[in-house]
Amino acid sequence: MKDIGKKALDFHKKHQGKLVTGSVTSINTRDDLSLVYTPGVATVSSAIASKPMLSYDYTWRGRAVAVVSDGSAVLGLGNIGPVAALPVMEGKALLLKQFGGVDAVPLVLDTQEPSDIIRFVTHVAPSFAGILLEDISAPRCFQIEEALQQIGIPVFHDDQHGTAIVVGAALRNAAKVVGKRYEELRVVIVGAGAAGLATAKMLLGLTCESDTCDVLPGSRRVHDVIVVDKNGALLPGRNDQNIYKQAVASVSNRDRKHGDLTTVIRGADVVIGVSGPQTIFPEMISAMAPKSIVFAMANPIPEIMPDIALRAGAAIVATGRSDFSNQINNVLAFPGVFRAVIRGRLTAITPQMKLAATDAIADLVKKPTPHFIVPDPFDPRLARSVANAMLRAK
Amino acid sequence: MKDIGKKALDFHKKHQGKLVTGSVTSINTRDDLSLVYTPGVATVSSAIASKPMLSYDYTWRGRAVAVVSDGSAVLGLGNIGPVAALPVMEGKALLLKQFGGVDAVPLVLDTQEPSDIIRFVTHVAPSFAGILLEDISAPRCFQIEEALQQIGIPVFHDDQHGTAIVVGAALRNAAKVVGKRYEELRVVIVGAGAAGLATAKMLLGLTCESDTCDVLPGSRRVHDVIVVDKNGALLPGRNDQNIYKQAVASVSNRDRKHGDLTTVIRGADVVIGVSGPQTIFPEMISAMAPKSIVFAMANPIPEIMPDIALRAGAAIVATGRSDFSNQINNVLAFPGVFRAVIRGRLTAITPQMKLAATDAIADLVKKPTPHFIVPDPFDPRLARSVANAMLRAK
Repeated sequence: MKDIGKKALDFHKKHQGKLVTGSVTSINTRDDLSLVYTPGVATVSSAIASKPMLSYDYTWRGRAVAVVSDGSAVLGLGNIGPVAALPVMEGKALLLKQFGGVDAVPLVLDTQEPSDIIRFVTHVAPSFAGILLEDISAPRCFQIEEALQQIGIPVFHDDQHGTAIVVGAALRNAAKVVGKRYEELRVVIVGAGAAGLATAKMLLGLTCESDTCDVLPGSRRVHDVIVVDKNGALLPGRNDQNIYKQAVASVSNRDRKHGDLTTVIRGADVVIGVSGPQTIFPEMISAMAPKSIVFAMANPIPEIMPDIALRAGAAIVATGRSDFSNQINNVLAFPGVFRAVIRGRLTAITPQMKLAATDAIADLVKKPTPHFIVPDPFDPRLARSVANAMLRAK
Repeated sequence: MKDIGKKALDFHKKHQGKLVTGSVTSINTRDDLSLVYTPGVATVSSAIASKPMLSYDYTWRGRAVAVVSDGSAVLGLGNIGPVAALPVMEGKALLLKQFGGVDAVPLVLDTQEPSDIIRFVTHVAPSFAGILLEDISAPRCFQIEEALQQIGIPVFHDDQHGTAIVVGAALRNAAKVVGKRYEELRVVIVGAGAAGLATAKMLLGLTCESDTCDVLPGSRRVHDVIVVDKNGALLPGRNDQNIYKQAVASVSNRDRKHGDLTTVIRGADVVIGVSGPQTIFPEMISAMAPKSIVFAMANPIPEIMPDIALRAGAAIVATGRSDFSNQINNVLAFPGVFRAVIRGRLTAITPQMKLAATDAIADLVKKPTPHFIVPDPFDPRLARSVANAMLRAK
């Protein structure tokens, strides 16, 4: 890690970051200028003025998205603010281009007021085909995303849905490897922030708005999911839960189990850590059902290290890190998601589309093994498969 | 024009606009990923969190600017709104890169409220080294720019200062060609919007805030400038002037001339049109002093066509168009201005810097002639000369 950190600093300093802009064609003559700038551009502007949807055909809007963050929940680093979040957003913008063929721009904001962020995105919306929200802390992220969806802006909060999609895909393949039925898995999720709640909704096949959730008809769903926060298992009766936790509590924890992680993990088939470093211990793994599945996704230090989990009896371990096998990383999802947004000129990214993306990612691994449950991020089929599946679910 | 318009539409459709994003380096392996994204990027974010100014060294912020418009005053097309303004802003972003080596992103806004625009730019400021404001109508543009300057955001409203800088440079060389002293020129400006008032301030060597203007010490200045709006010459006594017109009225029109353009243009050495098509007539040119200078800058149709102005007695004619000689276009200024912003990490673009940019552009034409008073936009010395001059004036 230390070595990678030093290399990363040197790399970023040498190149002054990593994103660049460029032109679709070189501009060498006055004639070139007259096409891309005055007087030719006036004709293009006039055409769009009379038919605004032409902005998708005649400008980069049709293939460009913004990566927006307030820097309130960056990686495992927490609330480090906008300028410190910029390297991460610049990286996401590069990955959108590299893997999804989507032109992307990082916008980090000097405010953490939900109403400011909603207003900001609403005002900038005509510049882009869609908005990728990143590293905005819960529960503000739920409020912001919901408001923007209601306005009709195509928006995707990666920490929620990117994580949920990739975890869902990994879990489908992990279930195959251990020979258990996906629908019958008993799942415990550690962490009730953006990623934890969104993953619970995805696995339970739910579509939620604020304080109410409904089951999506016809979706493959896990029936037993328990979400644990620092006060224990989410439960309808608990009075220390925000409305987003309450909504999930009311439709999860089928057997109404009380207690902390040590208690509710007993007999579970799957534990999914989306919390922080070293919050899952070997004796918890040992208390799980045979052939247990452990996803320890905290970055850069997971909830439990893979070797320890395996020694404690886990059959399959995945993390968020590139230096272990089974890297569950959002980069498997968001480039394809925004490829779909652009190709389909989507005005919303629906729960059905997210489920379709999950299936598409899982299906790229034809023969899953304990060390190969998700495709490689460099798999050239990835973004296209995700986009195609989402557009079929439209 | 019709032919260029058709070609421009075809070009924009074929390429879906003209701007693209890219990476400083190709990302081909997991090791590459670990540098630009997790886990390496965490070290970069942590470094910036502890020392925010490192964002200029470690991210593209140090070389990136935003081109912001609300689409309220686009070219000669007027208030056509954000999506119709996008082709123009995308073009400006390309030219910033092509001529200034500056990475730039167009942001068009779904609001025309000055307070919204001020808030928007303030919120997005941590993402960029500077902000180019474009095609925002007067008098809102003055209020917006002033508020942002007071906050300490490096901001440059091109329609004001870009125009003023390039007109100033052209006028210095035009005065040389006709053998008149720059300081003694009698100048009439037609139009009291963003470009007209800013050009008056530039020529008069003024620095203004809202309703008060002061003379910049030591600057070469024209002493006799009259600005004409649709109600006639600006004058201290007129009660139909906004505060920005009042401020200029109080320090211009030395001889307190009353009346419309036909009246005040008599005997003038220079007329500068920054208004609209066909507002200057041949008999007005004939009434000017001998060896008159005519800048007819309305786009795409000038205040008077060059051949007509020349037949009416003008010695030098310039327009904003690329298909006539002496094209006075902001592209001569803004790429160099933002090159300076980036190289100098400027927090403000001062009137002294703008005057220095004017001199730098004028000086690139060693031997001005009636048909060559400003450098070619493709002159490779241009942006560097402007930036160097501005940084020396810091």
